[in-house]
Amino acid sequence: MTETGRAALFFGPGKPFALTELPVPEPEPGALVMRVTRANVCGSDLHIWRGDGALGARARDDGRLIGHEMTGVVHTLGDGVTHDWAGTPLAVGDRIVCQYFAPCGRCRPCLRGRSEACVNSGRVFLGRPSDFPYFRGSFGDYFYIHPTMAVFRVPDAVSDASAAGVNCALAQMVMALERGEVGMGDRVVVQGAGGLGLYATALAKERGAEQVVVIDGVAERLEMARRMGADEVVDLREYADAKARVARVRDLTDGGGDVVCELVGHPSVIEEGLRMVAPAGRYLELGTFYPGSTAAVDPGVLVMRNIDLRSVSFYDAWSLQQALGFLARHGERLGLGSASVEFGLEEIDSAFAAQDAGQVARASIVM
Amino acid sequence: MTETGRAALFFGPGKPFALTELPVPEPEPGALVMRVTRANVCGSDLHIWRGDGALGARARDDGRLIGHEMTGVVHTLGDGVTHDWAGTPLAVGDRIVCQYFAPCGRCRPCLRGRSEACVNSGRVFLGRPSDFPYFRGSFGDYFYIHPTMAVFRVPDAVSDASAAGVNCALAQMVMALERGEVGMGDRVVVQGAGGLGLYATALAKERGAEQVVVIDGVAERLEMARRMGADEVVDLREYADAKARVARVRDLTDGGGDVVCELVGHPSVIEEGLRMVAPAGRYLELGTFYPGSTAAVDPGVLVMRNIDLRSVSFYDAWSLQQALGFLARHGERLGLGSASVEFGLEEIDSAFAAQDAGQVARASIVM
Amino acid sequence: MTETGRAALFFGPGKPFALTELPVPEPEPGALVMRVTRANVCGSDLHIWRGDGALGARARDDGRLIGHEMTGVVHTLGDGVTHDWAGTPLAVGDRIVCQYFAPCGRCRPCLRGRSEACVNSGRVFLGRPSDFPYFRGSFGDYFYIHPTMAVFRVPDAVSDASAAGVNCALAQMVMALERGEVGMGDRVVVQGAGGLGLYATALAKERGAEQVVVIDGVAERLEMARRMGADEVVDLREYADAKARVARVRDLTDGGGDVVCELVGHPSVIEEGLRMVAPAGRYLELGTFYPGSTAAVDPGVLVMRNIDLRSVSFYDAWSLQQALGFLARHGERLGLGSASVEFGLEEIDSAFAAQDAGQVARASIVM
Amino acid sequence: MTETGRAALFFGPGKPFALTELPVPEPEPGALVMRVTRANVCGSDLHIWRGDGALGARARDDGRLIGHEMTGVVHTLGDGVTHDWAGTPLAVGDRIVCQYFAPCGRCRPCLRGRSEACVNSGRVFLGRPSDFPYFRGSFGDYFYIHPTMAVFRVPDAVSDASAAGVNCALAQMVMALERGEVGMGDRVVVQGAGGLGLYATALAKERGAEQVVVIDGVAERLEMARRMGADEVVDLREYADAKARVARVRDLTDGGGDVVCELVGHPSVIEEGLRMVAPAGRYLELGTFYPGSTAAVDPGVLVMRNIDLRSVSFYDAWSLQQALGFLARHGERLGLGSASVEFGLEEIDSAFAAQDAGQVARASIVM
Repeated sequence: MTETGRAALFFGPGKPFALTELPVPEPEPGALVMRVTRANVCGSDLHIWRGDGALGARARDDGRLIGHEMTGVVHTLGDGVTHDWAGTPLAVGDRIVCQYFAPCGRCRPCLRGRSEACVNSGRVFLGRPSDFPYFRGSFGDYFYIHPTMAVFRVPDAVSDASAAGVNCALAQMVMALERGEVGMGDRVVVQGAGGLGLYATALAKERGAEQVVVIDGVAERLEMARRMGADEVVDLREYADAKARVARVRDLTDGGGDVVCELVGHPSVIEEGLRMVAPAGRYLELGTFYPGSTAAVDPGVLVMRNIDLRSVSFYDAWSLQQALGFLARHGERLGLGSASVEFGLEEIDSAFAAQDAGQVARASIVM
Repeated sequence: MTETGRAALFFGPGKPFALTELPVPEPEPGALVMRVTRANVCGSDLHIWRGDGALGARARDDGRLIGHEMTGVVHTLGDGVTHDWAGTPLAVGDRIVCQYFAPCGRCRPCLRGRSEACVNSGRVFLGRPSDFPYFRGSFGDYFYIHPTMAVFRVPDAVSDASAAGVNCALAQMVMALERGEVGMGDRVVVQGAGGLGLYATALAKERGAEQVVVIDGVAERLEMARRMGADEVVDLREYADAKARVARVRDLTDGGGDVVCELVGHPSVIEEGLRMVAPAGRYLELGTFYPGSTAAVDPGVLVMRNIDLRSVSFYDAWSLQQALGFLARHGERLGLGSASVEFGLEEIDSAFAAQDAGQVARASIVM
Repeated sequence: MTETGRAALFFGPGKPFALTELPVPEPEPGALVMRVTRANVCGSDLHIWRGDGALGARARDDGRLIGHEMTGVVHTLGDGVTHDWAGTPLAVGDRIVCQYFAPCGRCRPCLRGRSEACVNSGRVFLGRPSDFPYFRGSFGDYFYIHPTMAVFRVPDAVSDASAAGVNCALAQMVMALERGEVGMGDRVVVQGAGGLGLYATALAKERGAEQVVVIDGVAERLEMARRMGADEVVDLREYADAKARVARVRDLTDGGGDVVCELVGHPSVIEEGLRMVAPAGRYLELGTFYPGSTAAVDPGVLVMRNIDLRSVSFYDAWSLQQALGFLARHGERLGLGSASVEFGLEEIDSAFAAQDAGQVARASIVM
Repeated sequence: MTETGRAALFFGPGKPFALTELPVPEPEPGALVMRVTRANVCGSDLHIWRGDGALGARARDDGRLIGHEMTGVVHTLGDGVTHDWAGTPLAVGDRIVCQYFAPCGRCRPCLRGRSEACVNSGRVFLGRPSDFPYFRGSFGDYFYIHPTMAVFRVPDAVSDASAAGVNCALAQMVMALERGEVGMGDRVVVQGAGGLGLYATALAKERGAEQVVVIDGVAERLEMARRMGADEVVDLREYADAKARVARVRDLTDGGGDVVCELVGHPSVIEEGLRMVAPAGRYLELGTFYPGSTAAVDPGVLVMRNIDLRSVSFYDAWSLQQALGFLARHGERLGLGSASVEFGLEEIDSAFAAQDAGQVARASIVM
């Protein structure tokens, strides 16, 4: 008799998730099966749930297993899997995190050391839950870890609540600040103090940034940003318009941020953000990550100021390892992961509704 | 009695240049005075002449000396000036080229090794011809070379006609391909086969590009691109729309250019060009260099493909030196500089009109 | 009945190779079996054959299959192998080249995008020919290509004689010049005009080097270097000592090479070579690649001149792909691969003896 | 009547300094005169004083003004000097620090953005105190700041005692860690817990290093290293030999440091240190900075492990600015500058003797 596990399937915007049982897969050589212990509702999950844009359009109405921000424990080790990607031994029951996409190692970006831009890494999302390996998303009892997905043991100092955010938001920000070359002495501006923005703030300070300026319109979020190390905060509500905000940020940073991060997720902030970049600085585009929207950009402003716009979607294995290390060093002190509100898997509809309504900062499904 | 020289002053769009005499300045310590031998009409000169956008708006109607793409000979050496910036001895009469802007060496970009993005380098353009150092533009008999403007002796193998394009178009492209990290094995797409595009083609091959694809709508320009080393050309007229052009380029490059260069100078080509970039590739924005226009950009497309947009305005001293070296090695073979049509300084109105009408590829004022 | 193939086993310095038959392995999923068509005798093979230093000491006397510089055709494709690492379809009989070591993708260097420094990539050399996968070296009819060894189809324009040198010497030099950041305008000095030195010369020009200076003591080799694009050659025999050679090179390069490459393979040339490096330049150490020798280095000279010494052993998949692309573009014109002298597998003892005695530039075993 | 100031002239090893009066120079345009308030005895001053090696040999016995690690206040501003290199206004009496060497901006390293490796920056050390600008060293009442020496206003939060070490030791370490690309997640090993080693420790943590391991043989120094943020210390006295120390460091770092810094100043530690570097790691050579000694290096070990050795002598203006910023953020907390023992200028002989004898960690001449 095959072992099975629960999975909450998604049938399209406006429809309730349906709990079902799926077979627990046998891992191929090099693969693992993880038993999921905690899965967060990420912003992109909400986009799918709402049917927003290209991401929403991609959702099928035949019952798919979505979700990707999670942590768990080793359930089964495939042949040849004895250690994690940092060389630490792995045993059944060990707490782990993993990439939720699978870089191929052979496409042009992969060959050039840019596995975060792999053109094939999303193939593992495709397929019905009735087909092997069944568990392709995090909103279920198990998750299938393909051989090329990086997996790391979670240090004891890192709680499950903290670890659950590592393999999406935090690793993503680690990658982004690396691509943005944030370094000692830099002035960094963060548009948006949501989860990504708070991580960006803490990470920029960890990398030696001289100054981090955070922009948001919610007092509690700005307060959190201060706790993460923000040197200055800009409350949107105190400024009449984009021009006034740009002037304020340029004044605080003495000419603009060496790096400005778009973590709002709305294309309207991009033009404003680009004007906050210092000459020869970088604008990191992460927030508005799915196709289908338009930003108006004045190329002459970019050229005259020699500004780079750098875009980042996924992350590489090193970023995931560094995200974990950062949590082990600073997670406790910064209180990362503390904002989660827990739901059971059978409460997943409520979890999505609550996060969509802004009633909770971070809904976390605990299996 | 003060020595004087001719200068063709600009009084605004639609008005003729006026020839006048200005005093030849005495160089301060570290400065030089160049006697201009040849000055090209650059695309940005045309923008000013026509009154286009921000650049046109910046022109004053009180008689200014414009122009910047030029070559000449040493007229006077200031105290302490004995060698060019490559360490070659300089004497009166030596053929030279120089930066036409003056990096300050002390602003934040300069301190970080990005002197091409100096925030003060354009200050030398400001000021009336009646004030020292009088000769601030190239359309006159002399040009004042400030102490922080890089100056290089022109190798004998490089003709005046070739050298005249070095300190603007060619050095600019050298800088851009450096910032775009064009290297061995890269596939490079060039939008626009004007002067910049032809230089880009030849330079990309010099850097070891595997493939250069050039897009234009004029047969002679595509033919020239072939001569510069283009592996493939795309004739705009053969494709119905941007979508068809993007498909063609993606097909030729097996997924897009590792680097795509915008050298058309019209914001409408940017969205199309961004779709021609390979995942993890770079889009080099140079063409649409003055503020005042708008490009519609889909940030989600950039993110999903991890694309960088890098902007380049001026260039550093090393780029100028490399541009000269490139000309010495390949200028003759490639026939660079051969497209110029010569005018006297008193014919400057005709020169601008001819280039504006497209009757000449490159109008060159010979003093 | 199991299919078998010939293998020339090595039993230690001074002993003849012994031809034996080994089973042709069945490839695991992701692996391939190559039928070797041509295998060169590389310098490191000679070291093993002679029993030189650490490399020689590593050789076992129980009969091992050595050799690694080769080309061949697809004999069997493992499950899931349908394309090469550039995305080109693969079929039985297709001409291919491959890495001869297997980066793990999970060690610290691999995670940081430095797979050429993988700490586990040499594990595939270990093991007796009596154990699966039997064919671990090139001096036999087959070679087992592990799933993480990069494999590329050989373009039609590249002959077998050229292709045989790709997966060691040429890919190694591609990697080295990348790590040495050889770029447009650089002055490059090459110590030693053997196979590596000739490749270095041609590749440096391909990358836009302004000047390549090659040092050797054999007239034919210097002549070959000229044919590869060397701008200047320095004949060792014309200079009294290291001091004179350093002076000559500094004079030719106007202060030293931006990059100097050690391709002689003797530690005595290192001190001399370091003195040929320009301030802020790089010294690429490849030649003296196996432990057990000593170079005397004056650290104060390095510091005062801000010199980097960069070491390179293996190469990454991208370098192999680029090496093939370079051959396709320039191999014919440069006559690369033309220096090989062919031997049958049963003549392998003569092949080694001839190359050891310097009677042939490159002994190539043709199966 | 010309204003004068005191200067302690050096007449050679073993001879007492002689106090004399020199004219206070009038600054040329772009230059400044600083009134020195505090000058440290740096390790390289001791080398000169003792007559060690090449540095000692360079000292003249005709009475020279040496010294370079210092802080002071603006005494006179040359024409055109209104701001420091960060754009902060400057007035007479403002506390400042400056580069003690003068990058030319025009040599090959300068043109390539490597002004720390300028081949001309030491020219300002040359010349007798009887010739303009007289005050070429720090052991006097004034110091002449040439136009190309970077100068920065000292923030109020930084004490004179802290500021005095900025323009040599601290800026040097900022530059070195930049060249060594020390970043988030790196494991850093520091050989030697003297002034440079302590700065290296604190700076590596500031840049996000995961682990810093410090090696020394003096308990108080290791204790200080802990206070600067060292995660692990290795007491030389507890290990039998280099092999045991290498084993300990490799064990602590799980294979070696991503970056290892030589800050001991003796070539004998280099071979040992190179064996402490992780595969694909960097060895930073700063300590043994003057020519005349020899380190035995096994090139095969470097190659097999793909190790870079990077050498750093001076620093660029950005590093000096960042050093000041680091002090402003962390100097107070870390107690940097607290180890100085003060001497008057007339006590300079005692100051050198005390530091030479190890009686004081840092002798500081207070004017």
